[in-house]
Amino acid sequence: MLNRLFPKDFNFFELFEKQADCLCEGADCLKKAIEKGSVDQFYLRKIQEIETKADESAGAVISQLNKSFITPFDREDIHNLTKSLDDVIDMMNTISNRLNTYKITDIRKNLIEFSLVIEEAVRKLSCAVKGMNDMKNYQVVMSACVEVSRLENISDSLRDSALMSLFENEKDPIAVIKWKEIYEDAETVVDICEDAAHVIESIMLKQA
Amino acid sequence: MLNRLFPKDFNFFELFEKQADCLCEGADCLKKAIEKGSVDQFYLRKIQEIETKADESAGAVISQLNKSFITPFDREDIHNLTKSLDDVIDMMNTISNRLNTYKITDIRKNLIEFSLVIEEAVRKLSCAVKGMNDMKNYQVVMSACVEVSRLENISDSLRDSALMSLFENEKDPIAVIKWKEIYEDAETVVDICEDAAHVIESIMLKQA
Amino acid sequence: MLNRLFPKDFNFFELFEKQADCLCEGADCLKKAIEKGSVDQFYLRKIQEIETKADESAGAVISQLNKSFITPFDREDIHNLTKSLDDVIDMMNTISNRLNTYKITDIRKNLIEFSLVIEEAVRKLSCAVKGMNDMKNYQVVMSACVEVSRLENISDSLRDSALMSLFENEKDPIAVIKWKEIYEDAETVVDICEDAAHVIESIMLKQA
Repeated sequence: MLNRLFPKDFNFFELFEKQADCLCEGADCLKKAIEKGSVDQFYLRKIQEIETKADESAGAVISQLNKSFITPFDREDIHNLTKSLDDVIDMMNTISNRLNTYKITDIRKNLIEFSLVIEEAVRKLSCAVKGMNDMKNYQVVMSACVEVSRLENISDSLRDSALMSLFENEKDPIAVIKWKEIYEDAETVVDICEDAAHVIESIMLKQA
Repeated sequence: MLNRLFPKDFNFFELFEKQADCLCEGADCLKKAIEKGSVDQFYLRKIQEIETKADESAGAVISQLNKSFITPFDREDIHNLTKSLDDVIDMMNTISNRLNTYKITDIRKNLIEFSLVIEEAVRKLSCAVKGMNDMKNYQVVMSACVEVSRLENISDSLRDSALMSLFENEKDPIAVIKWKEIYEDAETVVDICEDAAHVIESIMLKQA
Repeated sequence: MLNRLFPKDFNFFELFEKQADCLCEGADCLKKAIEKGSVDQFYLRKIQEIETKADESAGAVISQLNKSFITPFDREDIHNLTKSLDDVIDMMNTISNRLNTYKITDIRKNLIEFSLVIEEAVRKLSCAVKGMNDMKNYQVVMSACVEVSRLENISDSLRDSALMSLFENEKDPIAVIKWKEIYEDAETVVDICEDAAHVIESIMLKQA
């Protein structure tokens, strides 16, 4: 049991799970805003709040890491995992912020598809994070990580076809600037999910 | 005293201070060019020279790091600190370069404000760097780092309002392309200052 | 001899060399597509295949790294080297993909020049990689790394002059968006080659 090596008064796994919950909440919020057709003040603030909450968990991990002699796995891996989970919610917040800043109210079909892929990737990642604290979940965790990679491939194709259609059909250059960036950011969310999944895979392999 | 652990013939702190001085000099130069209304050959070269000088200090840190058995704090932290200080001046050089490449001569109010925030962030960061060599400066260093984070929040809002106004008012798409990038780069300078401040905070916490 | 420290049944150097070969193959393919005037389905798929092949070598390095107690040099350095070699081919694939997505068929002189600098940088990098397994190649490896840095400077100037001319002469904002990104990506390939060369220099210095 990994937990045995771990001081009783502090639990890194709990904080990773909190981060993962924030990711799911953020993805759900972003999807709802996108389905509604715009990011208004309500969703803007809500996603911002989730990001702040996630920041607090990440900060607690880093500050505990600096104080702990014994950690459940490599310090470097703990750092990378918490950092990449934090980057996922940051990037969702960036998208929400951009949709608001660019005053986008005609959300396009491609972005709705993206929001579903993001939500699924974040859920699979969260499933991997929540299994990590017990090696008997090895297979479940590894399968969830493979799923994240599969979704990253889908997200790559989605971005390519969204950009291709944008450059073919959109004649307003300022709209091209806005949407190009939004699609690329959406793909980046799933990219960072995959980074986090790779860290988890590597942790599991070392423990196996 | 940290200095006791440190070989007498080499001083990492001195080099960090040199890097910090280059940052202040670079921010000062950039501010003056921006206030003057354009980056001409004089300022372009001057900022480039400062960047080269900073590179030399960073290079000396890395090369000494590869040779030293004993370092005043974690090798990884030394590496990250010198790298992020180097990234700050690199990004200021990028902005100077871009203002020149894009032949921008109508510098906007938002960028002037940015240049003041950058200068303040760099000064606070420099204050933190210069206090690091003695734990009796603990409180001063930590407060300076908190100031850098405060300035990073200001810089975030500055970028958001600058972009919002750009997309609302600028009808020339090529000007949108240019200014969007310049505002984002300006915000990135302060972002990297905060990265450097986080490394310093973590070093101080470990030593405390 | 570094090889002595190294388990007989696994050879990191062989995998680095495979990665380096993929880089050369990719650069050659990209150059041919660019000289031909467009990235058609043939070259698009071919560069994609090379990227997949390179990914497999990188994956084998990382997975072996997680299993090995003894490595020919710092684990961190092995990880960084394989990662940056992988980033080089990824970015070449990105360019190929972009030229296809943007349906670019009027390839410009500046990009042809870039493809030659990329090819040379990748060849020098590959030469450095292939010399690393024996310290008697110290001088050859270090010279090749210096060459990569020289080519990175050339590539910087190439990007600056390409962007300057783009902003001066191109009146179609959508063409500005496309070409700006392609030139920046081309410069990034050589940037990452320099990152890889820096890792190699640092490995050689530590062993010297």
